[in-house]
Amino acid sequence: MGENTDPQELDRLFSPRSVALVGASPNPYSGGYAYAVHLLQDFKGKFFFVNPRAEEVLGVKTYPSLSDLPEQVDYVICSISSEKVPSLLEECSRKGVKIVHLFTARMSETGREGGEALEREIVEKARRLGIRVLGPNCMGLYNPEVGLTYGYSFPEEPGPVGGIFQSGGLSTDFVHYGYLRGLRFSRVVSYGNGRDLDESELLRYFSWHPSTRVVAVYLEGVRDGRKFVGALREAAEKKPVVVLRGGRGKTGARAIRSHTASVAGREEVWGAVLRSCGAVEVDSFDELLDQLVAFAFLPPSTGRRVAVLGGGGGKSVLSADLWEREGFELPDLGPSLREKLKEMCPGEWDWVGNPVDFSILQERPVMPQEWLEMMDDSGDFDFFVFNLTEDDPLPEEVWRFWMEEQVNGLLRFRRRGRPLLAVVPSAGVDSRELRRWRWEAIGEIRRRMVEEGLPVFPSAERAARALRRFADYWEKRSRKGISPSCSSGS
Amino acid sequence: MGENTDPQELDRLFSPRSVALVGASPNPYSGGYAYAVHLLQDFKGKFFFVNPRAEEVLGVKTYPSLSDLPEQVDYVICSISSEKVPSLLEECSRKGVKIVHLFTARMSETGREGGEALEREIVEKARRLGIRVLGPNCMGLYNPEVGLTYGYSFPEEPGPVGGIFQSGGLSTDFVHYGYLRGLRFSRVVSYGNGRDLDESELLRYFSWHPSTRVVAVYLEGVRDGRKFVGALREAAEKKPVVVLRGGRGKTGARAIRSHTASVAGREEVWGAVLRSCGAVEVDSFDELLDQLVAFAFLPPSTGRRVAVLGGGGGKSVLSADLWEREGFELPDLGPSLREKLKEMCPGEWDWVGNPVDFSILQERPVMPQEWLEMMDDSGDFDFFVFNLTEDDPLPEEVWRFWMEEQVNGLLRFRRRGRPLLAVVPSAGVDSRELRRWRWEAIGEIRRRMVEEGLPVFPSAERAARALRRFADYWEKRSRKGISPSCSSGS
Repeated sequence: MGENTDPQELDRLFSPRSVALVGASPNPYSGGYAYAVHLLQDFKGKFFFVNPRAEEVLGVKTYPSLSDLPEQVDYVICSISSEKVPSLLEECSRKGVKIVHLFTARMSETGREGGEALEREIVEKARRLGIRVLGPNCMGLYNPEVGLTYGYSFPEEPGPVGGIFQSGGLSTDFVHYGYLRGLRFSRVVSYGNGRDLDESELLRYFSWHPSTRVVAVYLEGVRDGRKFVGALREAAEKKPVVVLRGGRGKTGARAIRSHTASVAGREEVWGAVLRSCGAVEVDSFDELLDQLVAFAFLPPSTGRRVAVLGGGGGKSVLSADLWEREGFELPDLGPSLREKLKEMCPGEWDWVGNPVDFSILQERPVMPQEWLEMMDDSGDFDFFVFNLTEDDPLPEEVWRFWMEEQVNGLLRFRRRGRPLLAVVPSAGVDSRELRRWRWEAIGEIRRRMVEEGLPVFPSAERAARALRRFADYWEKRSRKGISPSCSSGS
Repeated sequence: MGENTDPQELDRLFSPRSVALVGASPNPYSGGYAYAVHLLQDFKGKFFFVNPRAEEVLGVKTYPSLSDLPEQVDYVICSISSEKVPSLLEECSRKGVKIVHLFTARMSETGREGGEALEREIVEKARRLGIRVLGPNCMGLYNPEVGLTYGYSFPEEPGPVGGIFQSGGLSTDFVHYGYLRGLRFSRVVSYGNGRDLDESELLRYFSWHPSTRVVAVYLEGVRDGRKFVGALREAAEKKPVVVLRGGRGKTGARAIRSHTASVAGREEVWGAVLRSCGAVEVDSFDELLDQLVAFAFLPPSTGRRVAVLGGGGGKSVLSADLWEREGFELPDLGPSLREKLKEMCPGEWDWVGNPVDFSILQERPVMPQEWLEMMDDSGDFDFFVFNLTEDDPLPEEVWRFWMEEQVNGLLRFRRRGRPLLAVVPSAGVDSRELRRWRWEAIGEIRRRMVEEGLPVFPSAERAARALRRFADYWEKRSRKGISPSCSSGS
C-alpha cells in the first residue's frame, strides 16, 4: 500500500513543533475534549484549537477553521465527523500539514459500504496531497519527548519501549499497566484501521528508531503480508519484537472485523511466520507486559541455570516446578558452597538446597544478600530469582523489619549487575482494605523495587514464561551470529 | 497408617473448648509468641500458657508445665524443641488431651536419621496414649468458629471453603490472598509431615463436614496411595476438591524431601489418578485461588455458551480468543435481539456483536444492565462475563461516573441470580502511587464487587481457565448421575 516515508522523515512527522486540534470540544465525553486537555497540559510545542461553533475551549481561543490559523502547522489531530474529512485535507495541504491523525472513526470498521468508500477516498486524497494519515479510528501518537499524548496519566518521561497497537484501548492499558511495572516509552502508536500508515511501515520506523530498545506489537491483521514479513524480520534482527495477536479464534476473528476492519489470517500460518521472522509471540495482554519487563530490564542472556531464593517450603517447591516446566534447571548447591555453609550453619548446611527455602534457616541469620552473593560466587547460576517471603507468621513490627532486610539486601546485591528478578504476588487490592498494613507494605516494596529498575513479576509462572521466551530470543540471535551487545539492557 | 477417627469425632477435636500452648514465648520471632497472640486475641474458649522459664507472656500467667494446669484441656499447641515432645505426651495423657498440634519441627524433614526416629517414636507413643497428632512441622488448625487460628489477619467470620495444606506458608497465603478474593473458610489445616493425621483422613473429614462446600488441597506426597485414592474419590463425588501438587519436577521433588519429607510419585501416574477420582487439578497457586473463587461463588453449571460484555475492541477480541481457547463458544446475537437493537441504535445494531464492544456504542447509551438483561432474555447464553472497561479516554470525573454506572448496573443485574463474573485487571499497585485516583477507584470497585459476592478474576485467561475446569467438573458429575443441587452455590 502506498509509498513509505523514510524512518528519519517519519520521526520528524512524529515530533511536531506545532499541532492543530480540529474538533476541539468542551464536552468532556468527547475525544475533542481529551485531546484539548492533553495539548494544554503536556504538549511542549505550539498548538491551536479549531471549532466553528465555539469561541474558546478550556479557556483557549478556537479558530473557525484550519484555514483561519495565523500560521502553518506540522500535525493535525482530527476529531470531526468522517464526511467532513475530505475537505479538511484540502485545508491541511494549504497549511503545510504533513500528517493527519484521524481520531475520527465510523468508516470501514462499520462494515458498511459508505464507510469503506469514504475511508478509501480520504486516503487517496491525502496521498495526492502528500499528507500521511494515521488511522482512521485510532488514538494516535504518544511521544513523551514532545509531550504529545492521548491518555490521561501517561508518564511524562520517555523510555526504551516502543509500541505499535491496532487497538487504542489496549495501547492505553499498555501504558497504564506498563507504567506500574516500571516501563517507560519512546513512542506508542495506536494506528486503528491503518489505511495509510500501517503496521509494516511502523515496524520499519521502530526498527530504525535509535532510543527504542524493544517493541511491543498488537495486531489484528496485516494489510500486506509480504511487506509485513520483510519488516518484521528486519526489526527482530535488530531488537526484540514482542507480538500479541487478536482474532486467533473464530469469534475473535469475527470481532476484529467490527473493530478495525481487519481480516485475521490462518492461525497455523501466523505462528510459523512469526517464528521464522524471529519475533517473540505472546498469548495474552499480561504476557505482553511480562515480556516487555524482561526485555527492558534484563541484560541479554541465554542462560538457563537459575538460582531461586526466598519463600517457605511450599513456595520454593512450586517455584522449582514452574521454572523447570519452562525448561530451566535449578542446579543444586555445589561442594565449595556447601563447605562455606557448613561453617555458617552446621545444622542446616546439608539440608537446605536450591531453591533456598528460607524457613529452614533458623540457626543463624544467613541474610538474603549473603545467599545471593555466595550463589553468585559459585559460578553455577546464570540468573537469580528472589521470591518475596511475605507469608511468615510474624507480628507486624517484626514482619516489617524482616521484609525491609530482605529488600535492602536484594537491592545491595543488585549493584553487582547480575541478572536478578523478583516475584512479588499481587493481592489485587488497593486502598482501604480492612486489614491494610500488610498490603500497603507489600505495595511499597514493589514500588521501591520497580523504581530501582528491578524486573518484578506477580508470580513464578509468569516470570518463568517470560524468561523462557527471553532466553529463546537471545539464543536464536546468538545462533545467527548477531551480537546482542547493540541492544544491551540497562 | 494408624487408626482413623470418625469425622464427627475429629470435628470435636478440631473445635476445642480449651487449649494449652506449651512453649508460649515473649520472643516475637517465635511461633510460641504468635500462637500466644492468636489465643489471646481470637480464641473463644479457655486457654493456658506453659513455659517453665517465664512468669507471664503478654501479660498472661504461664504455668511451669502442663501438669501444673488447674484443669483438663482438650487441645495442645506444642512449640517446644523436638526432643522434649515424648515426655510432654505423657503429661498430655494425664491431662485428658485428645489432640496435640506439633508446630515443633526438625524431624524427618531434616533428612537426618535422628529426626526420622524421633518422629516415629512420638507418633507411636501418641497412638498408645490415644492422642491424635497434627504435624509435626506444621502451622496447625484454623477454625474461625472457635477462634482458633495460626495467622495474623485471618478473617474472623467463617465460610464454605475448606483447606488441606501440606505447607504452612502456602496455607497462610491461601487465607490472605483468598480473603481478598472474597473467600471465607470453614477450617484450614496445615498438616506438615502428616505422620499421624494425614491427607487421606483430612479428606474424609472435609468430605463429611457439612458447612464445607469446596475443598482446596496442596499436596507434596501421600502416605498411603490406596487410602488416598479412596478418600479422594469419595470426597470428589460429594463436593469439588481442587488439588495443587508440589514436587512435579525433578528439583521440586528434591525440595519436598527437605520440606515435608514427602516422596513425590511418578508424574504420569498422578495426573491419571486425580482425573479418575474426579478431582480438579490446577497448576499453580494463582489457579488454585481462581478455582476456589469459581466454585465458591457460582451455582453449578455445565454451560459453555458465554456472553462477554465490556471493554473496547482490542479487549473484546482478546477475551473472545481466550474464552474460545478454553472450549467456550460466544454465540452471536440472535435475530430477536437484533430487532430490539435496531430500534434502540439504528446505526450500530448490525455492527455490534458478542463480545459486546462498548466503544462501538455511541448513538444512545445502552447501559451495561440493559445489555445483560437483553442477552439473558434471549436465552442464548449460559453465563455472563463482564470486562470492566477502565481504559476509556475520559477525564477523572466522567471516568468515575461511567465506572459507577457500569458497576451499579452489573450489581442490579446480579439480582436475577444468573451466573455472572467480572474481569477486573489487577494493577499490582497499592497505595501512594504517583497518579493514584485511577487505581484507588478500580480497587474500590473490585472490593465492592467482592463484598457483594461476585466472582472477580484479574484476567480473561485466568477466568476462562477456571471456568473450563468448573464446567468440566459439573459435567462429569452430571454424567455420573449425581445431582449437583446438594452443593449448590450461593
